[in-house]
Amino acid sequence: MAFPKKKLQGLVAATITPMTENGEINFSVIGQYVDYLVKEQGVKNIFVNGTTGEGLSLSVSERRQVAEEWVTKGKDKLDQVIIHVGALSLKESQELAQHAAEIGADGIAVIAPFFLKPWTKDILINFLKEVAAAAPALPFYYYHIPALTGVKIRAEELLDGILDKIPTFQGLKFSDTDLLDFGQCVDQNRQQQFAFLFGVDEQLLSALVMGATGAVGSTYNYLGKKTNQMLEAFEQKDFSLALNYQFCIQRFINFVVKLGFGVSQTKAIMTLVSGIPMGPPRLPLQKASREFTDSAEAKLKSLDFLSFTDLKDGNLEVGS
Amino acid sequence: MAFPKKKLQGLVAATITPMTENGEINFSVIGQYVDYLVKEQGVKNIFVNGTTGEGLSLSVSERRQVAEEWVTKGKDKLDQVIIHVGALSLKESQELAQHAAEIGADGIAVIAPFFLKPWTKDILINFLKEVAAAAPALPFYYYHIPALTGVKIRAEELLDGILDKIPTFQGLKFSDTDLLDFGQCVDQNRQQQFAFLFGVDEQLLSALVMGATGAVGSTYNYLGKKTNQMLEAFEQKDFSLALNYQFCIQRFINFVVKLGFGVSQTKAIMTLVSGIPMGPPRLPLQKASREFTDSAEAKLKSLDFLSFTDLKDGNLEVGS
Amino acid sequence: MAFPKKKLQGLVAATITPMTENGEINFSVIGQYVDYLVKEQGVKNIFVNGTTGEGLSLSVSERRQVAEEWVTKGKDKLDQVIIHVGALSLKESQELAQHAAEIGADGIAVIAPFFLKPWTKDILINFLKEVAAAAPALPFYYYHIPALTGVKIRAEELLDGILDKIPTFQGLKFSDTDLLDFGQCVDQNRQQQFAFLFGVDEQLLSALVMGATGAVGSTYNYLGKKTNQMLEAFEQKDFSLALNYQFCIQRFINFVVKLGFGVSQTKAIMTLVSGIPMGPPRLPLQKASREFTDSAEAKLKSLDFLSFTDLKDGNLEVGS
Amino acid sequence: MAFPKKKLQGLVAATITPMTENGEINFSVIGQYVDYLVKEQGVKNIFVNGTTGEGLSLSVSERRQVAEEWVTKGKDKLDQVIIHVGALSLKESQELAQHAAEIGADGIAVIAPFFLKPWTKDILINFLKEVAAAAPALPFYYYHIPALTGVKIRAEELLDGILDKIPTFQGLKFSDTDLLDFGQCVDQNRQQQFAFLFGVDEQLLSALVMGATGAVGSTYNYLGKKTNQMLEAFEQKDFSLALNYQFCIQRFINFVVKLGFGVSQTKAIMTLVSGIPMGPPRLPLQKASREFTDSAEAKLKSLDFLSFTDLKDGNLEVGS
Repeated sequence: MAFPKKKLQGLVAATITPMTENGEINFSVIGQYVDYLVKEQGVKNIFVNGTTGEGLSLSVSERRQVAEEWVTKGKDKLDQVIIHVGALSLKESQELAQHAAEIGADGIAVIAPFFLKPWTKDILINFLKEVAAAAPALPFYYYHIPALTGVKIRAEELLDGILDKIPTFQGLKFSDTDLLDFGQCVDQNRQQQFAFLFGVDEQLLSALVMGATGAVGSTYNYLGKKTNQMLEAFEQKDFSLALNYQFCIQRFINFVVKLGFGVSQTKAIMTLVSGIPMGPPRLPLQKASREFTDSAEAKLKSLDFLSFTDLKDGNLEVGS
Repeated sequence: MAFPKKKLQGLVAATITPMTENGEINFSVIGQYVDYLVKEQGVKNIFVNGTTGEGLSLSVSERRQVAEEWVTKGKDKLDQVIIHVGALSLKESQELAQHAAEIGADGIAVIAPFFLKPWTKDILINFLKEVAAAAPALPFYYYHIPALTGVKIRAEELLDGILDKIPTFQGLKFSDTDLLDFGQCVDQNRQQQFAFLFGVDEQLLSALVMGATGAVGSTYNYLGKKTNQMLEAFEQKDFSLALNYQFCIQRFINFVVKLGFGVSQTKAIMTLVSGIPMGPPRLPLQKASREFTDSAEAKLKSLDFLSFTDLKDGNLEVGS
Repeated sequence: MAFPKKKLQGLVAATITPMTENGEINFSVIGQYVDYLVKEQGVKNIFVNGTTGEGLSLSVSERRQVAEEWVTKGKDKLDQVIIHVGALSLKESQELAQHAAEIGADGIAVIAPFFLKPWTKDILINFLKEVAAAAPALPFYYYHIPALTGVKIRAEELLDGILDKIPTFQGLKFSDTDLLDFGQCVDQNRQQQFAFLFGVDEQLLSALVMGATGAVGSTYNYLGKKTNQMLEAFEQKDFSLALNYQFCIQRFINFVVKLGFGVSQTKAIMTLVSGIPMGPPRLPLQKASREFTDSAEAKLKSLDFLSFTDLKDGNLEVGS
Repeated sequence: MAFPKKKLQGLVAATITPMTENGEINFSVIGQYVDYLVKEQGVKNIFVNGTTGEGLSLSVSERRQVAEEWVTKGKDKLDQVIIHVGALSLKESQELAQHAAEIGADGIAVIAPFFLKPWTKDILINFLKEVAAAAPALPFYYYHIPALTGVKIRAEELLDGILDKIPTFQGLKFSDTDLLDFGQCVDQNRQQQFAFLFGVDEQLLSALVMGATGAVGSTYNYLGKKTNQMLEAFEQKDFSLALNYQFCIQRFINFVVKLGFGVSQTKAIMTLVSGIPMGPPRLPLQKASREFTDSAEAKLKSLDFLSFTDLKDGNLEVGS
């Protein structure tokens, strides 16, 4: 099978894993979630079981079920469904990669293992290669997120080895602010056949100018429309307009960052904005406080990031 | 069932998971390994599937098999078999805890989750409580290892909450050099019913004087005898002798630390000293280099930490 | 005296402090250095006694002499001479600020103290205020460089307090890759009267799109011309050309970063490119190795960043 | 002049620099401070202008005056007065070292520079050598404090080079909890002619058992007597008594650490306990809050660390 396959473009929403109040996965809302992303946010690609999806808080069998549900519900509606299959155990990563291929996902993504850590770039590349080999027909994306994994190897230093050893490589999710590293990844990508997806939503504009071909993030669940407007302005070289959109998005993110912002808060915000109940997170996370939700709601309103019909349902759920 | 149960005392070897050259678990040598620990090293307690055992590099089903094998082979030979059941997924941790109870292990230990991290001590305690509750008849040990998990909450700040919420709590494995934190844990343990096990082998003496009741570590696999001599000297208040033993052990550890010392190197050293083939580690680790093994062997000889019969076999295996 | 004064625009070279082979300051080449920056690099603003100038490795009296020499030699040639007066001791910072005013510098810049660290933003603002008050007629710039100072307070959180308490505030030197923080500083600067100078040379383009009004850095000593071409392309909205310049600059920086890149190496590179002997650094730094200099020279040639006449002298000096 | 000189033994108080309410140095109480240390705390050695003394917040001329005052007032009362002469500028360090010799101090101590950092142990040794050479007749102590300087080179790796290059070397102040590193320093000190002074007060007992010959710290200003009782118990091999003293001291330190404990708080506590007004710290520090002082006072009382006559004056001052 020839690579590269259809290139992953534009915004990719890092999906939340909806849960019931007692912490079980709420599969029932995933269909509605797909429609919301496509119709309300204009987002047609998703990244499943990543950080935002609490992928590593799920059991392997839960990860399989969640992946399968997204692929099924996304059929004929979404462009691409990428499954994050990273795990501390190579065997489990391989099992998840193989499963992603079986269910017809459009690609897999993998983070560096981060308990016992690869000491050299070659060891990391070997690890990634072993995972990719378990799904030889699926596009492979390396998910670079040093702040969470503590693996300090720069993405740019991996690229040659990855291209050499992983024929299914099709791009990077780059979740760091080191734009020398990111830029040099793009710079090496002469034929531009790969996807360089930026993962720091609050400064996406800074990566677009550096050659990013798309973005993966949690905020595209509820700020996808606004971010698409920024992408459009950027493509039309209207920089002051693009910057206005970026600043507007930053004002919201900056506000919640100061309150403490993570997956728990993302679930609360998405519930507010979409009206779809995302439920609480699972331990080791804890439901966002009512204070957070109220402050976030007020800020969303003040920035006109909410439609009030959505809001009411959202409110009811979050309050519950 | 009444707590505390039989107190965990003295040295606890953090067991290596033996593997074949192709990276599968080598169950066949575990019986021999048990006999070696008891007869050659005088170590009768083990800590299974921890960092040294590459516990988090194994699949859940492999972790179950490994735990079962140690319990079976240790029967009537070992005093206590503690199973580390920590995982990023609460559900998997609970499954492993329940399994440990089913196979008749003597206790479970759990680290703080470290991808998504508990933001407060209460959340961490709730997480630990949920794991402990899955094995209500088994002694529970909290494994404190901030350098690896990056969870900054001090052990001493957890203790009240743990005692309050986890009736099966029976002690700590404290793998850090903050002896204010460690000392205050011991100091709060008025009735001395709990085990405070120190996990930084190279400075065990500094924790003994601070009230440690035992130790868990990888070096007790091959330096258990020497360390037991240090414990004895300490109990007899012969501090200069105890310090001599500690310095002697430090010389070896300091030497290998400078060469780069981790689980891979521990496997090579144990193979050398015991003559039992531990095999290579699994990715993301890589087999220790021949240079390391040769240097370590020379150092072991110079410190008289080897018996030559063991050495020969060891050599053959490591070279292979 | 009314603020803001003449706004600091475009590139600002963080000047090297030239030294003799025995580590004394080589004042004799500063005039030549000024001419080189203006004529060869098109850089007319300088930042004196910062990190690149080994400002904190100099004694207070040396810092005074260096500042004075740059102001004198820059007269009628340079647009603005900014003196970095940050120090661990408030008193010394104040002495240097007052001196900067006396010699007719165009502004002062200050980093957060970083041995004993300010615990809150209010304490940091009070510290900065006390320094600024020692030079009430000089524009004040806050030099934000968390990676070097370890002071974690975000710049955006300081801005309100600084505007409130420091009437002479005229801008930031922002030496970090957190462009949410940087963007929100710019976003708050409604009337655009302040200078937001980016300090991470290798990714300047990413900050320009986020509203940077200029840049301060060490590479502008020898890559000022190339960087000015990038700025021009950016202003003309020719993004692909701007990105080409940025990638070209990144290739050089990325290359030297892998060799180990700091002030010592900057001195060697500037000597090579300008032909002006910058000399070795002072302890705790050590002269760049011959290997580094040779590799850097080859890379500069391959990127056509050198003119061969300059090169010859450079070579001779560096070899000496 | 022959080395080693008289060995530095027992407790060394890291002196506070007393200040007036307006932040000027209060020389007037230093004589009283000396008498208090000797008579009330049984401490006859001091470490001047270190972290506790806000040494790096003082100007060079202030550091000279403070050093001179302590030497003068300590004459015939103190055993040894060690002056910390570390600075970011080698020249200033050398000036202070020479001055320490001129005023008849008993030794100098130096930290690693930490803005521009030595990249290798050889560079660090060269830096230290240059400082030591400025006071060729004074005992030289290396002050190892990686957490504050961020210089990661282990002390044990420096020792050979230091012994080789610094004839005046007479010991280490080791302010870290890595007791492998500390132990191996002691272990290398075969003839035991050097002082290995531990700098983490709250766990001194753990270093005594590892061969520490003394201790330097801020708490010996007000807990010197209690700590001396611990030293005595340790020498008499009464470990349970020594541990009781250590735990008692830890309870206090653990309590204040949770409230936020630094130089500001040390000044407030010393004022409370000694009745000598230490005054506020200088920016970038800020006076301890009244809440802190009240809580600390209550804790000191509950642990019987206060005599009430002292307390009253203390209260008045701190409240002022």
